[in-house]
Amino acid sequence: MSVSAYVLIQTDAGKASIVAAEVRALDGVASAEGITGPYDVIARAGADTINDLGRFVVSKIQMVNGVRRTLTCPIVEL
Amino acid sequence: MSVSAYVLIQTDAGKASIVAAEVRALDGVASAEGITGPYDVIARAGADTINDLGRFVVSKIQMVNGVRRTLTCPIVEL
Amino acid sequence: MSVSAYVLIQTDAGKASIVAAEVRALDGVASAEGITGPYDVIARAGADTINDLGRFVVSKIQMVNGVRRTLTCPIVEL
Amino acid sequence: MSVSAYVLIQTDAGKASIVAAEVRALDGVASAEGITGPYDVIARAGADTINDLGRFVVSKIQMVNGVRRTLTCPIVEL
Amino acid sequence: MSVSAYVLIQTDAGKASIVAAEVRALDGVASAEGITGPYDVIARAGADTINDLGRFVVSKIQMVNGVRRTLTCPIVEL
Amino acid sequence: MSVSAYVLIQTDAGKASIVAAEVRALDGVASAEGITGPYDVIARAGADTINDLGRFVVSKIQMVNGVRRTLTCPIVEL
Amino acid sequence: MSVSAYVLIQTDAGKASIVAAEVRALDGVASAEGITGPYDVIARAGADTINDLGRFVVSKIQMVNGVRRTLTCPIVEL
Amino acid sequence: MSVSAYVLIQTDAGKASIVAAEVRALDGVASAEGITGPYDVIARAGADTINDLGRFVVSKIQMVNGVRRTLTCPIVEL
Repeated sequence: MSVSAYVLIQTDAGKASIVAAEVRALDGVASAEGITGPYDVIARAGADTINDLGRFVVSKIQMVNGVRRTLTCPIVEL
Repeated sequence: MSVSAYVLIQTDAGKASIVAAEVRALDGVASAEGITGPYDVIARAGADTINDLGRFVVSKIQMVNGVRRTLTCPIVEL
Repeated sequence: MSVSAYVLIQTDAGKASIVAAEVRALDGVASAEGITGPYDVIARAGADTINDLGRFVVSKIQMVNGVRRTLTCPIVEL
Repeated sequence: MSVSAYVLIQTDAGKASIVAAEVRALDGVASAEGITGPYDVIARAGADTINDLGRFVVSKIQMVNGVRRTLTCPIVEL
Repeated sequence: MSVSAYVLIQTDAGKASIVAAEVRALDGVASAEGITGPYDVIARAGADTINDLGRFVVSKIQMVNGVRRTLTCPIVEL
Repeated sequence: MSVSAYVLIQTDAGKASIVAAEVRALDGVASAEGITGPYDVIARAGADTINDLGRFVVSKIQMVNGVRRTLTCPIVEL
Repeated sequence: MSVSAYVLIQTDAGKASIVAAEVRALDGVASAEGITGPYDVIARAGADTINDLGRFVVSKIQMVNGVRRTLTCPIVEL
Repeated sequence: MSVSAYVLIQTDAGKASIVAAEVRALDGVASAEGITGPYDVIARAGADTINDLGRFVVSKIQMVNGVRRTLTCPIVEL
């Protein structure tokens, strides 16, 4: 895949564990882990283009029950 | 129009695409595009006065289904 | 160009006007305007790939004197 | 004046008191008070147009020694 | 009153105007105005003690329909 | 307990007082107090491990009615 | 003391440990601990009035070398 | 190692690339990548205890030239 990103996820209260599990099971997601701090789950996802990545986040990750906000941070080789 | 602004929009999960389309169709909106990062949609809107602009954001953009928060950034010629 | 982005720029105090002018003059920048609110200047830039875009922001926009922080928001067709 | 705004000011450490006093003394500033929380000083300023207001913040308020960031919030009659 | 504060209010989408009017009508509130930016309404309120002020915000201002979040910034004479 | 943390809690409008009382009553919570500013309640909690602490916040504190967001800040001996 | 507050402190890079130690040694500070997350040190301080507290933060805590920003959160009995 | 964390890093303007390379070379850091958005570099680091992790971030990562702020997000198995 040519574009990868870290997706920082805020969940509804009490939903971090189940959100991490469901996001981890999505095709295109390499990992999803619970974290403490301003975000509750961090996932790494990939797609062919930035448009595909944007659509994946909106149509798949944000559709997981308990996801409140996502912050997509595309990885760039500087 | 004498006052223009960028309006940074956060949407409900999964609603960025439809929000962008509906905001783009509003009279007074020049453009509305999906973006990744802390905001989901960025629109450019104009009005005759800052009061008109404020009313437009509250009564039109915020009334679009799926809009959660807006951040209005008036353009200033410095 | 295949990837475009809005770049939200925070400047050092008193530098918004000159930063907007210098960023606007960069190759690859379509527009740069002063705004009020949490950000001081908003620019629209394009590049061939997300990596090129990332490098452009770090090596050109962030190198403009008076730029403190940038927030790159790639445009996605959702 | 046709445009007024609250300006939320973050100062350098230890400078809130002197910043409040200097901002209060500026022509066009109606009040400036120290506050606790994410901002250190809140001022109320007015100008003829939004452009004048933007220029005033950049060229006068941000020029006060000890001002780190300002957040201009134009007042709108909704 | 011995403690005054600015209260920065975020409202539900489309509710800024009515929230400003209802907050303005509360006893103990000196002013409430609509603003653009990260906050939608700014009010100035006073009470006898910081505890009274905290209770007033929670039991009166936050009870106004359409108020989502408040950020209380007590005024301090530095 | 080997890991302690401050937990900064944002509550639903009007719920700070009852949230503080319910969180304070949880086993593993040393204190919970109402505060003004970006957060509404601050609690201090402890657990045997960072994993236990994370689970405690998600399964106990976030389950208290009226808790909207929590920000867990583990204490570190630097 | 009639007003107490938690003070959330952001430090310059690498300075959290020494800032915690110096703040802890100030008269009027009950505790100061290193934390991870958006803030680096959390202190608890008290004063006779909210004005005294504000002055203490500006003239004592912010004067500690390495303190970049403070966020004062007065405790309120709700 | 018993505690791992993602560390979200903000760098000085223009320094993201060199910061990523230097952080990646630190013992205890598994990866460090450039990203776009509110943070410039994301690293994954591990240590034996949360205290060791906190010390590592303050004494190693924050000591890298060009690092402005770090946000440590410990991974929790929920």
